[in-house]
Amino acid sequence: MTTDLSIFNGTGLEGLVSPVTFSLSADTTAQKALDTIRSNHTVRYVLYITDENGRLTGTVKLSDLLIAEPEQTLGEIREDHQLITANLNEDREEIAEKFKDYDLLSLPVTDENGVLIGVIEYDDAIDILREETTEDFEKMAAISAQDKPYLITSDFKMAKSRIVWLLVLMLSSILTGDIITRYENAFVTMPILISFIPMLMDTGGNCGSQSSTIVIRGITTKELRFRDFFAVVFKEFKISILVSAVLAVVNGIRILIQYHDPLLALTIVLSLVITVVFAKLLGAALPMLADKIGIDPATMASPLITTIVDTCSVLIYFRFACIIFNL
Amino acid sequence: MTTDLSIFNGTGLEGLVSPVTFSLSADTTAQKALDTIRSNHTVRYVLYITDENGRLTGTVKLSDLLIAEPEQTLGEIREDHQLITANLNEDREEIAEKFKDYDLLSLPVTDENGVLIGVIEYDDAIDILREETTEDFEKMAAISAQDKPYLITSDFKMAKSRIVWLLVLMLSSILTGDIITRYENAFVTMPILISFIPMLMDTGGNCGSQSSTIVIRGITTKELRFRDFFAVVFKEFKISILVSAVLAVVNGIRILIQYHDPLLALTIVLSLVITVVFAKLLGAALPMLADKIGIDPATMASPLITTIVDTCSVLIYFRFACIIFNL
Repeated sequence: MTTDLSIFNGTGLEGLVSPVTFSLSADTTAQKALDTIRSNHTVRYVLYITDENGRLTGTVKLSDLLIAEPEQTLGEIREDHQLITANLNEDREEIAEKFKDYDLLSLPVTDENGVLIGVIEYDDAIDILREETTEDFEKMAAISAQDKPYLITSDFKMAKSRIVWLLVLMLSSILTGDIITRYENAFVTMPILISFIPMLMDTGGNCGSQSSTIVIRGITTKELRFRDFFAVVFKEFKISILVSAVLAVVNGIRILIQYHDPLLALTIVLSLVITVVFAKLLGAALPMLADKIGIDPATMASPLITTIVDTCSVLIYFRFACIIFNL
Repeated sequence: MTTDLSIFNGTGLEGLVSPVTFSLSADTTAQKALDTIRSNHTVRYVLYITDENGRLTGTVKLSDLLIAEPEQTLGEIREDHQLITANLNEDREEIAEKFKDYDLLSLPVTDENGVLIGVIEYDDAIDILREETTEDFEKMAAISAQDKPYLITSDFKMAKSRIVWLLVLMLSSILTGDIITRYENAFVTMPILISFIPMLMDTGGNCGSQSSTIVIRGITTKELRFRDFFAVVFKEFKISILVSAVLAVVNGIRILIQYHDPLLALTIVLSLVITVVFAKLLGAALPMLADKIGIDPATMASPLITTIVDTCSVLIYFRFACIIFNL
């Protein structure tokens, strides 16, 4: 009763599904099942019980079969939880989710009548799980997902996968530049102000990407869920206070020593604290909100957070500078 | 013969190793082995063959045992490849590497005499593999690795794991700021120059992190090795030419339309192309060089690359501006 795998062509399951070489009825004994495995030369971690119409009715774990008494029937040793199955319309991501969520060793595929038509083995699913992790890394670096290995993907394709995000991010950093020019009077009067822009932008960006990376990873491994939203945001708030305090003190002391200017030190300290707190709250909140509304949280990673934080940190900084120095 | 797991306390294997509930001699028959599994109520993917002194001499895969004739001996159906074992001195990373490199289902642990003292199962190893991936994500966001789940790690500990890198990166971005002040004359004469700094810094940083992320992931999955160094660097060079051409054209046109200043457009176009090419070469080369000399390539990720690229992009930009505008 080996199934014809051609029915999977063109579906998301193509190349993933193994044929069902045999299935057993509920009244088969453990000894008979072991004999069937031996004569079919096919060992699977999970055996499938089907009724007379080929409909999947239950599963038996190989490990339960091996410790069962030889005369016990599969109906007696079957697993008693709900059947987890896949159908022809599911895509690779849904399959990977099921393996992760239910810790499966294999996943049966059934047709619209519940008839067993194939099996997806863990070994094949692990490749999808690995691809998903690679895709997460890629999205977090603002690259569209690649389906071929690095060295054999054409340069043109690689460039294409990177250019869209670069253009989007570039346009928004042009906005940051435009904001700076609005404060031309301020920095022409006081050129030293300019020298703190890289530090504020970089520190804000780095703080934001630390938070977003931790939260994105937490969502991916299902350690963090949306119900943790306020816990996560509040935790990042407390961390950002601690982190920004250290960074602000170090900077404040440096500025006092180098420029002997307490007002300048105050401007930088205030801007830095607000920027760091804002960056970390944004880095924590955006991936969780994205996940909630069905957008992949990995797209809310460093590059996007950095660009948003850049714009805001420059605005915050010049507002403080203008107020404090009356520019 | 269940082993006492307390011998693993204090070693890197603590909490990873399962006891050896039984091992079998080479002349045991397949039927006898199945009976032993049943009476011990312990199913493992791999069975171990030991000699009369308890020394590990071979392995039999459960799947081979199940399709063997009942009267065949384990000596006849044993796997014929070299034994892969772990010893008490290995750490979790080495264990994870062995599972990855040899596609193992389980890994036997032996003492200095080759006596089988425990087994590491795939299910336990997969947690290390997952931890390693999380650590990669964390290092790439400039966070020291955490050993506890996010929500239960103390805020103080979390802040500590992030502050060191932030300080290091902050100091180097202060350097970038100092470089800018050296060109005070240039930007006081021509304030518009300042408005392109965020765009150059961000675009350079994003380009560099795209390359470093792809290369780090390639090294982790063993898709890329050091022998690919020149292939990778050359590929990133070609990609950077394509990418920077598009970005430069978009920017050049925008500047011509907005400022009607061909020299300004030329300055930005040249700076952008050099910055993007430099960022991508650095992003590709640094992780591979780090891996070669034994530093975790994940530390060469976005934050570090971004900070280096920032400094250089500002330098390149002002050099071009000074030459072109004779400032």
